[in-house]
Amino acid sequence: MEGYPFAAHIRVRFADTDAQGVAHNSNYFIWFEVARVEFLERYAGGYQRLRDEGIESLVLESHAHFKSPAFFDDRLLIHARCHAVRGARFRFDYIVDRGGTVLADGWTVHGTVDAKTLRPTRTPEWLSESLLSAGSPS
Amino acid sequence: MEGYPFAAHIRVRFADTDAQGVAHNSNYFIWFEVARVEFLERYAGGYQRLRDEGIESLVLESHAHFKSPAFFDDRLLIHARCHAVRGARFRFDYIVDRGGTVLADGWTVHGTVDAKTLRPTRTPEWLSESLLSAGSPS
Amino acid sequence: MEGYPFAAHIRVRFADTDAQGVAHNSNYFIWFEVARVEFLERYAGGYQRLRDEGIESLVLESHAHFKSPAFFDDRLLIHARCHAVRGARFRFDYIVDRGGTVLADGWTVHGTVDAKTLRPTRTPEWLSESLLSAGSPS
Amino acid sequence: MEGYPFAAHIRVRFADTDAQGVAHNSNYFIWFEVARVEFLERYAGGYQRLRDEGIESLVLESHAHFKSPAFFDDRLLIHARCHAVRGARFRFDYIVDRGGTVLADGWTVHGTVDAKTLRPTRTPEWLSESLLSAGSPS
Repeated sequence: MEGYPFAAHIRVRFADTDAQGVAHNSNYFIWFEVARVEFLERYAGGYQRLRDEGIESLVLESHAHFKSPAFFDDRLLIHARCHAVRGARFRFDYIVDRGGTVLADGWTVHGTVDAKTLRPTRTPEWLSESLLSAGSPS
Repeated sequence: MEGYPFAAHIRVRFADTDAQGVAHNSNYFIWFEVARVEFLERYAGGYQRLRDEGIESLVLESHAHFKSPAFFDDRLLIHARCHAVRGARFRFDYIVDRGGTVLADGWTVHGTVDAKTLRPTRTPEWLSESLLSAGSPS
Repeated sequence: MEGYPFAAHIRVRFADTDAQGVAHNSNYFIWFEVARVEFLERYAGGYQRLRDEGIESLVLESHAHFKSPAFFDDRLLIHARCHAVRGARFRFDYIVDRGGTVLADGWTVHGTVDAKTLRPTRTPEWLSESLLSAGSPS
Repeated sequence: MEGYPFAAHIRVRFADTDAQGVAHNSNYFIWFEVARVEFLERYAGGYQRLRDEGIESLVLESHAHFKSPAFFDDRLLIHARCHAVRGARFRFDYIVDRGGTVLADGWTVHGTVDAKTLRPTRTPEWLSESLLSAGSPS
């Protein structure tokens, strides 16, 4: 997907479906997280590195736009990019893609906090640099 | 909560928490749905009435803004209001409130579809009228 | 339900359903937990009291027998009783009941562990006594 | 794993964890299902083939024995085998394995039902034969 350096692979589980026969909307936010975790692993030493430094990343905002439903056993790509890193915040964009068809897109905003107090802390420079190293959209 | 005619009661389950010790962000969208279902029951004869008429409501857009975490066993109010009903679409606003503190807010946009084809269908008038009967924000 | 001193109220959420149109089997274990947490609150000062003492309770075994499906919006009672407390272990039995019809039953076995090390620790006497105070089956 | 012809790969998601810092027990039943679905795909033409024939498979019984916790980002193998096929029922056994350490084991019993009525129906012969073709434990 143009502008997206990375994608995670998701296969829709039966437990993800609901009585409408489609993947329940709440799962997309879990898939976004899966993509984010794999993105961090690829470009920033993994989420565990944050935790090892006493930092947690909190989700501050979540958005999804559902265009077309996903079904049981669908193979999806969750494209992800890190869009901006400012102060204690960074943002991920996502596209949910089934064989080239965009089923949904979305974004999340994150802040880093001290793992013990859950109070906002400045995003460490190594993290900002790592996240942006993946290439951000122009 | 001013401007919100209705609230659902939620108690944070242990299964809702994650390794950060807070309620995982994906649950808020499930709580929004719980509030929506109870809202429909109160004002529009229940979600089952839609299904009985061969209509499903799909989530088209979801948004949440997380201000402060919710913890295991917290008692929450999920305030809901139906903000606008136009054509095949309607929108719900939500506030997640713990004892007067706003932990999060959000909104969802919905469209009605034919239950068999999942194709967009006009929102039936009885539904629009029922949803708005709860009082919409001025 | 005879022999069960306690029941938690559950309403099946839309997110609990799957593409078979019934509540997904994994939810029953979450409902068991909800009943357990409310049981602990009623008879043993709440799960938080355990955590305050540096103790966690781990699930060691889970069992469910599904007799008849639960559907969206069903109102269920999750009857619970604490069946036995031995050494570091205790057991809960459950019955999932919809208007007098038993939809499922099950049980879980638990052990207490040190919250930091997650190593087994003897169940504190106050906890054993509290759990049994609810009345155990003869 | 000896006696197990098949394993599915699972990576523990952050959303799977709970406030104890471990994967919540309800997820194991979802992982069992993931393994079952992949097993059916490998040996029996996929779960969709059942659905195409107007058959659903219901979970009748679920059991898990938790020996050691799984943590965020753990890579797990969910070994599965189909243990017995009798009348309208079949059974899967599972082992949850992290790098050779058995974290949990479990089993589920299933019955085939008519997709419309959800009433028990005999397991089709092609399904029994396919499931057993994987090799069952002696």
